[in-house]
Amino acid sequence: MRVLSRNLVHLARSHVSRAAAVTGGVRGQQTAAKEATAPLIANEPTAPKLLTSVPGPATKQHLKELNAIQESGAVSLFVDYERSLGNYMVDADGNTMLDVFTQISSLPLGYNHPDLLNILSDPSNVKVFINRPALGSFPSSTWPEDLRTSLLQVAPKGLQHLCTMACGSCSNENAYKAMYIRYRTKERGDKTDFTQEELDSCMINQAPGCPSYSLLSFQGAFHGRTMGCLATTHSKPIHKIDIPSLDWPIAPFPIYKYPLEEHVRENKEEDRRCLEQTEDLIHKYNSMGKPVAGIVVEPIQSEGGDNHASSEFFQELQQISKRTGAALLIDEVQTGGGPTGKMWCHEHFDLPEAPDVVTFSKKMLTGGYYIKEEFRPPQGYRIYNTWMGDPSKVVMLREVLRVIKRDNLLDNARETGDVLYKGIETLEQKFPQHIDRLRGRGRGTFIAFDGITPAKRDAIIGKLKLQGVHR
Amino acid sequence: MRVLSRNLVHLARSHVSRAAAVTGGVRGQQTAAKEATAPLIANEPTAPKLLTSVPGPATKQHLKELNAIQESGAVSLFVDYERSLGNYMVDADGNTMLDVFTQISSLPLGYNHPDLLNILSDPSNVKVFINRPALGSFPSSTWPEDLRTSLLQVAPKGLQHLCTMACGSCSNENAYKAMYIRYRTKERGDKTDFTQEELDSCMINQAPGCPSYSLLSFQGAFHGRTMGCLATTHSKPIHKIDIPSLDWPIAPFPIYKYPLEEHVRENKEEDRRCLEQTEDLIHKYNSMGKPVAGIVVEPIQSEGGDNHASSEFFQELQQISKRTGAALLIDEVQTGGGPTGKMWCHEHFDLPEAPDVVTFSKKMLTGGYYIKEEFRPPQGYRIYNTWMGDPSKVVMLREVLRVIKRDNLLDNARETGDVLYKGIETLEQKFPQHIDRLRGRGRGTFIAFDGITPAKRDAIIGKLKLQGVHR
Repeated sequence: MRVLSRNLVHLARSHVSRAAAVTGGVRGQQTAAKEATAPLIANEPTAPKLLTSVPGPATKQHLKELNAIQESGAVSLFVDYERSLGNYMVDADGNTMLDVFTQISSLPLGYNHPDLLNILSDPSNVKVFINRPALGSFPSSTWPEDLRTSLLQVAPKGLQHLCTMACGSCSNENAYKAMYIRYRTKERGDKTDFTQEELDSCMINQAPGCPSYSLLSFQGAFHGRTMGCLATTHSKPIHKIDIPSLDWPIAPFPIYKYPLEEHVRENKEEDRRCLEQTEDLIHKYNSMGKPVAGIVVEPIQSEGGDNHASSEFFQELQQISKRTGAALLIDEVQTGGGPTGKMWCHEHFDLPEAPDVVTFSKKMLTGGYYIKEEFRPPQGYRIYNTWMGDPSKVVMLREVLRVIKRDNLLDNARETGDVLYKGIETLEQKFPQHIDRLRGRGRGTFIAFDGITPAKRDAIIGKLKLQGVHR
Repeated sequence: MRVLSRNLVHLARSHVSRAAAVTGGVRGQQTAAKEATAPLIANEPTAPKLLTSVPGPATKQHLKELNAIQESGAVSLFVDYERSLGNYMVDADGNTMLDVFTQISSLPLGYNHPDLLNILSDPSNVKVFINRPALGSFPSSTWPEDLRTSLLQVAPKGLQHLCTMACGSCSNENAYKAMYIRYRTKERGDKTDFTQEELDSCMINQAPGCPSYSLLSFQGAFHGRTMGCLATTHSKPIHKIDIPSLDWPIAPFPIYKYPLEEHVRENKEEDRRCLEQTEDLIHKYNSMGKPVAGIVVEPIQSEGGDNHASSEFFQELQQISKRTGAALLIDEVQTGGGPTGKMWCHEHFDLPEAPDVVTFSKKMLTGGYYIKEEFRPPQGYRIYNTWMGDPSKVVMLREVLRVIKRDNLLDNARETGDVLYKGIETLEQKFPQHIDRLRGRGRGTFIAFDGITPAKRDAIIGKLKLQGVHR
């Protein structure tokens, strides 16, 4: 759980998150609660236990040491990863906390999951961890099979091609390149050769070799912090200030009124307003010599404040993409891997066909993206780097996917999410002077609400912290 | 070893590379040869052994499978990482090859080094591999000590601050940000607060929040392929074509005549020409509203063709940096970690003070950069992402550094490099109709030469391949 701009309170993100501990007092009212709180990992603690204030003296001492080496302004706790287990994180001071933040939503099975620890008892796997290859040129003999038994197993419907990368930013950066290349190849009438002028001009960063394409992104979006990604990120000034950027189109993302069922007309109007501006911006940038090669969107704006949009919004956005020729990229770096109760959040939207590109990282352990076949570059080495990901992360992912299936963790995320959502809904009705804009119904544990004021939000979070809930 | 633009033949990069197998016939002439060819890993093969043509039928079959999943135009071999050992790579067809390319120069100790395999027999290390944290917020209690016993042990003189990242591109992207932030902070007179106009404008990618800074890079440079990095990369069109870029200054990098001792005057003039244009370009971009916040340079242009420049060139470049206020970043992603016979290639240049930033990745196993203290951002979260590297790579690096020290591998790289260099020098004298522009004397195994024509270069490489030398 974490606090963002405005008055937001994020809630649990992990498959194995335990709703009841968060909803506290209302637990007893939920019929599904008992089932949802059964531990999925043996010997997992049953409740938080604080020994010191948080941060405690050991964290403060380590912070002093680390700050002598690197800028540490974002460090909040030092963690004892040896002792952490399941949903419970143990910090350097021995405090046991319920972790509903799960390493910025990147730990799919919690801490020290026994099945994951076990993969390193296989000497073959040890060799995968030690011999990191240049995957784009010298993959292991087992690599095609490794992909088939991991990433391809959970590929979004209609996207049977993929590319691995090391992290979320690299996934988006390279997926953006795939969209530029596709857009330019279409402009060439699917010819795959280059003119001498293109070859020469690209070497000095000039058109026509480096065309002046743009990407459309949304207000409140987060897509990473490398230069291309950062030009499409608009969630907080601290990410962007002092860093040069690009004049690219930025459309409004729907901000709904809640509860949804009481604001159907206004929210429909909000969809219309945002979509209209989106299409207008694409036409505007196309005609000003900065053709929009792609639309980049999160299925839920996570870093930017858990902003949800309707299925109709995404369906219509896809139509805009088709009308304008700008590819549609859905960034599932934060939403992918199961926390919404489906492997991919965009599966909730009933799109008539697959988006063109879906990027992932975090809970998938490896970065990368799925694409339609026509988005594969027509030549090698165009999307390439030394490592192109890391097979050891794919070995881990394969095991994670096996456990998700075996233990029905997608069902668990749905059921746990429902318990959590209903619990907070009850609290919202009981304490309307504290809780507002509860959102995320039917989206697994991807649930958030606003405090009525920043001060009240901070008070809620402060009290949760005192009870050992780590955000 | 690999072939690049022009007629280049790259040679061995690894600490443990075995010069004699490459220089072949001239081995017997080298007094140091016997010592340099003693195996550093028990049971390492003593020579290549080819069972099929390369690529063989198994590689071809795997390629067909992989190409059904992802674009595979850059894949040259499938590798049996279980059976590869030391300098010898075994491919999917059972061919044993002397690997002088070492996974694009990213395997510091060769394949399956026993000391590296051994670290995973420690259950504590297994937990580090399995529980990847969000390092920028929740590092392990052991993290400050982990950094002190690894990256800080080999920090370039004068650079005692650092930041870890996942890969080379992310290292450069974020180091670039550190330079922008420093440049802007200086412009603010070291004030650390922002105006409302800056806060608002940065959210829509506009100045003054997103200033129109540029970076100066060099013709032939390679710094990575994400958008910021790619704007400073100018080695091959295939990296850049169809990808939008930025109008930033690009200066000429010295291209020397060889042998150096016969062209002292011309090469000095070449330095002068390049430096003059560098400084002119900085003034030009400063005055056209695109202030140059940093100079980005490799100590040896590797991907761009193994272009070396003199110590005097780098010393004077640092003076230009100081006169113009553009920070100096030395990109040691490919050169760092020991292959030049020193841990950092720029140590060969006798700079009067440290460069402002040194980036690394590849043989360091973790990405990241070293910086002067004033290049630490004045606030947290400004240089940040979910993972900020991976502690498991730092655990591996610590072991690599221990082995480098224990086995005197920097000395080994120097001695092996000398043997290799002298062997090729003899060949160059004997076969001037084939070999030209031998370079890299005194730079460990970082050695290259040109074929007289592309056809002759390809013939040399083809013959080496038939003898089981993998490039």
